[in-house]
Amino acid sequence: MSEPTGKFIVVEGGEGVGKSTNIDYIKVLLEESGKKVVVTREPGGTALGEKIRELLLDKDGAAINADTELLLMFAARAQHIAEVIMPALERGQWVLCDRFTDASYAYQGGGRGLPLDRIASLEDWVQGALCPDSVIILDAPTAIGAQRVTKRGDKDRFEQEANAFFERVRNTYLQRAESDPSRYHVIDASQPLEQVQSSIKTVLTKILSV
Amino acid sequence: MSEPTGKFIVVEGGEGVGKSTNIDYIKVLLEESGKKVVVTREPGGTALGEKIRELLLDKDGAAINADTELLLMFAARAQHIAEVIMPALERGQWVLCDRFTDASYAYQGGGRGLPLDRIASLEDWVQGALCPDSVIILDAPTAIGAQRVTKRGDKDRFEQEANAFFERVRNTYLQRAESDPSRYHVIDASQPLEQVQSSIKTVLTKILSV
Repeated sequence: MSEPTGKFIVVEGGEGVGKSTNIDYIKVLLEESGKKVVVTREPGGTALGEKIRELLLDKDGAAINADTELLLMFAARAQHIAEVIMPALERGQWVLCDRFTDASYAYQGGGRGLPLDRIASLEDWVQGALCPDSVIILDAPTAIGAQRVTKRGDKDRFEQEANAFFERVRNTYLQRAESDPSRYHVIDASQPLEQVQSSIKTVLTKILSV
Repeated sequence: MSEPTGKFIVVEGGEGVGKSTNIDYIKVLLEESGKKVVVTREPGGTALGEKIRELLLDKDGAAINADTELLLMFAARAQHIAEVIMPALERGQWVLCDRFTDASYAYQGGGRGLPLDRIASLEDWVQGALCPDSVIILDAPTAIGAQRVTKRGDKDRFEQEANAFFERVRNTYLQRAESDPSRYHVIDASQPLEQVQSSIKTVLTKILSV
């Protein structure tokens, strides 16, 4: 396998922080800089991964044990890496991904309370040396995200969790960002969109200059 | 978690070796000895596990990477252990399971060529100290199994593999049996059913006497 030449950018954040809108914006900024961009998402990103996503998000579905949930996330991820992410990077394209392994730490670790070293062990098993070049975390108080999700209507299995769950998710994201400031960029997503995008632009300029 | 008091018996073997018929027979033998028996199967055994099984066996489904296949097997297994196997053992019931982790070594290890130490690492992650008390391997030359599967009609994603795949599956089962003769019992499943069942009865008498 040759050395990847594209870059792997992940956008993370809790519910209702504006990931979709801002991923569209980041894609445009990257393309304006001449990059070929593959936009994808987790869980999902492949035909099989989207079926696994349905199992994971189905609010009326079968009960899911926390270990099982994490294994399903990594099963979808292994497929996503093999089928989409690595081939794109090897072609020299940039991969812009809506959530990746930080979400497993935040949701299954922080949210569900799985030990972080157990998550790290699966991360190593599935990813080997692959990790995102940059992670942009859209951060907002959980109350703001919750309002936006409620407006959207029908909630999935994760969106139905209580506020304490989302507080732990948010805190885990912030702790991970603190541990590696060169790779993580936290954006205040409670600002008006124009300011959020101005902050994103500053971060992207930095990422593109490396 | 209290010490399990029931026993965990697994029946393994390649395609068309007569697992279903002989599991029914083993169940009767155990019940005649006064045991309460839970019969279950992998992949599957739970509502979620059966949905994962559909993804794994679907011959018209999406492409599945070998790592992903193994992670899906262990995702279903984690749910199966938490929801069915451990609760039954803790109630003092015997669990009689159609395939378990030896099948992951045989199919994903032997068949697909995944390194056995990678399988062992997931086995440890998912199962901790849990392993079957006894594994009964129904063994037959692959040509015999293939004939029986062809008679049944429509083949699933595994049954469509070439003969060399099933040879590697069979050899992996036999190697595992050789490595621990106290836990593994190999039965010649190419014999007439009456003789297969007589061999099974001998093995069961030994297991029940421990």
